[in-house]
Amino acid sequence: MSALDPLEDERWTRMAWARLSEPLDPVALDLVRDHGLERGLALVLRGGGARHPLAERFLRRLADFDLERDLHATEVMGARVVIPGDEEWPCRLDDLAVPPWCLWVRGPLHLGEASARSVSIVGARASTAYGEHLATDLAAGLVLRGFTIVSGAALGIDGAAHRGALATDGDTVAVLACGVDRAYPASHTGLIRQVREAGAVISEVPPGSAPTRTRFLSRNRIIAALSAGTIVVEASLRSGALKTARTADELHRPVGAVPGPVTSAVSAGCHDLVRVRDVTLVTDAAEVAELVGDLGVDLAPAKHGPVRAGDDLDEVTARVLTSIPHYASRTVDDLCRAAGLSPAEVAEALGRLELAGLVEHRLDGWGLTRRGVRRAG
Amino acid sequence: MSALDPLEDERWTRMAWARLSEPLDPVALDLVRDHGLERGLALVLRGGGARHPLAERFLRRLADFDLERDLHATEVMGARVVIPGDEEWPCRLDDLAVPPWCLWVRGPLHLGEASARSVSIVGARASTAYGEHLATDLAAGLVLRGFTIVSGAALGIDGAAHRGALATDGDTVAVLACGVDRAYPASHTGLIRQVREAGAVISEVPPGSAPTRTRFLSRNRIIAALSAGTIVVEASLRSGALKTARTADELHRPVGAVPGPVTSAVSAGCHDLVRVRDVTLVTDAAEVAELVGDLGVDLAPAKHGPVRAGDDLDEVTARVLTSIPHYASRTVDDLCRAAGLSPAEVAEALGRLELAGLVEHRLDGWGLTRRGVRRAG
Repeated sequence: MSALDPLEDERWTRMAWARLSEPLDPVALDLVRDHGLERGLALVLRGGGARHPLAERFLRRLADFDLERDLHATEVMGARVVIPGDEEWPCRLDDLAVPPWCLWVRGPLHLGEASARSVSIVGARASTAYGEHLATDLAAGLVLRGFTIVSGAALGIDGAAHRGALATDGDTVAVLACGVDRAYPASHTGLIRQVREAGAVISEVPPGSAPTRTRFLSRNRIIAALSAGTIVVEASLRSGALKTARTADELHRPVGAVPGPVTSAVSAGCHDLVRVRDVTLVTDAAEVAELVGDLGVDLAPAKHGPVRAGDDLDEVTARVLTSIPHYASRTVDDLCRAAGLSPAEVAEALGRLELAGLVEHRLDGWGLTRRGVRRAG
Repeated sequence: MSALDPLEDERWTRMAWARLSEPLDPVALDLVRDHGLERGLALVLRGGGARHPLAERFLRRLADFDLERDLHATEVMGARVVIPGDEEWPCRLDDLAVPPWCLWVRGPLHLGEASARSVSIVGARASTAYGEHLATDLAAGLVLRGFTIVSGAALGIDGAAHRGALATDGDTVAVLACGVDRAYPASHTGLIRQVREAGAVISEVPPGSAPTRTRFLSRNRIIAALSAGTIVVEASLRSGALKTARTADELHRPVGAVPGPVTSAVSAGCHDLVRVRDVTLVTDAAEVAELVGDLGVDLAPAKHGPVRAGDDLDEVTARVLTSIPHYASRTVDDLCRAAGLSPAEVAEALGRLELAGLVEHRLDGWGLTRRGVRRAG
């Protein structure tokens, strides 16, 4: 133990809790709930009979505990520790049943500001080229709409999302399951460095911590809570991304899922979200922006096919038009029979169609113009 | 005009209306609404001043009108004309605002019975290999569940759906936009013959009628109405299949859409249905059966990933398990530090994990068994 008294400062207290307990550790939460942050910690730090019986769990880590070393390591790597109440603290995290004790943050981005207009893009590590292409595209399109891209720096979809943001000089936040001094997976060392240099790399576990499965799971809740909404690009039926989506949904944040081929196992989780969890299907950045963005401001344009000349024809005129074959002419008499109309009706319709440039009068009758062929097709 | 009096028989009256008027012709519908089927027709057939002024529209066709020839042609090709009230009439069609006057039917299938448990599978003509594969697969899977497959014999998805039904010796109905003596598109001549020999080819327009755009549109309402539900496999944003889906929805029949790559223009219509029209996303035959089949009987199994050994571990035990690396051993002391637990907790967890066959005690500590590696992965 150092000479510092951690109770003097809430930041130190929170760093100590993060060091001594695993994320979401129920014993730590019980102690803090019953005794408060600082007094709960004191009950752990005290020696001998004054130690709380529940503190047994933390003894092994207490033996290695050195807050001064942690402070030093944090400072040396240019990281900062952000806690609730700090101006940089993203208040969205307070919606969590159990917010992180604190966050280690590396990078120039102001975490609170970045979180205000942000989207989490998550998905399978074993993604397909299709999914990665889309994650990159969505991230780039959302950056252009002013969103920060939040993800987990994992292989596959996460990495593609960060890359899409970086490629468009956008803001991006990587939430790690290990300490911010480490890079996991190792093959993303370069990517994580880029995120750290341009955006922010954050973690709730102290420097030096290894990524474990349980830390991934608790990390996912931070990804869900940090942003205004979560998009799952590809996910198998057991993907951790589905858990992130569920957490976002529990926090009443909008969740979107990108569809894919039903023959793809890594789209099965997305399709299940849409079918069973009533998640919104999204196909591009505009639709994501509408889903997670500001009401009214981020409306996606309605999708429709190309408008064709003569789309607005009345029923009788349309019938005459579609009774003329593409590459032959028809007399008025032919058209009366084919369309089931009187000569007067056919003549009137032909007049309208001629005005619209869709038909023309030829020596052997009425035929479609090139525009008319396109319309009738 | 033949010597037959069409008013003697409702079947003849309906055949005459089908011959004289285009499907959904508003003038014909007005006459029948105001004067009844037979008297309305009489007002058209009468010559000179006794003819209804609105009948002008039908004069050109009246000149060619020969019901005896139609009856003969129908008989010669082995077709039958089915009208409301016939035992074979599919009563689902009565849900339409404007049911067809009558249906020409060719093939061994009993139309009314086939319609009872049936699914319409429709989609783009310009389909992809993915969409065709799925349409075939869905049709085959639905045949195995006792469904008749209804479609429009068009290129692309329609053809694939019929083929899937035929390949599994299933019942299938092709609803044509031309007369049942014709085959459109010409390249589907063989397919349409197969449907005629094994199932049924039907049309609301009389023998000899050419397929026109307006007839395709009115034909689509029959596809929607004939079956218990409609599935769109692939559709561009302007596809006629979307109109079929809309009609099915208006008839309160379930509608499903199959997702695909968002980069595919022929999946855009399906995605739009799910996003904007609240249509159900479906990914396989079981889900389609659940959507359109009998409540409770046709439930699709819930989808889930593979169950892994130890899925049901409590939180402390899972923490210990995930603190052991895949290819190295750890002492109890190591695990206390890594998992943030007391020696007693770690020992108890290891006991449980050993019983489950997930960890084993080695000379240098505790390691994962092969089963444990699979679980921890």
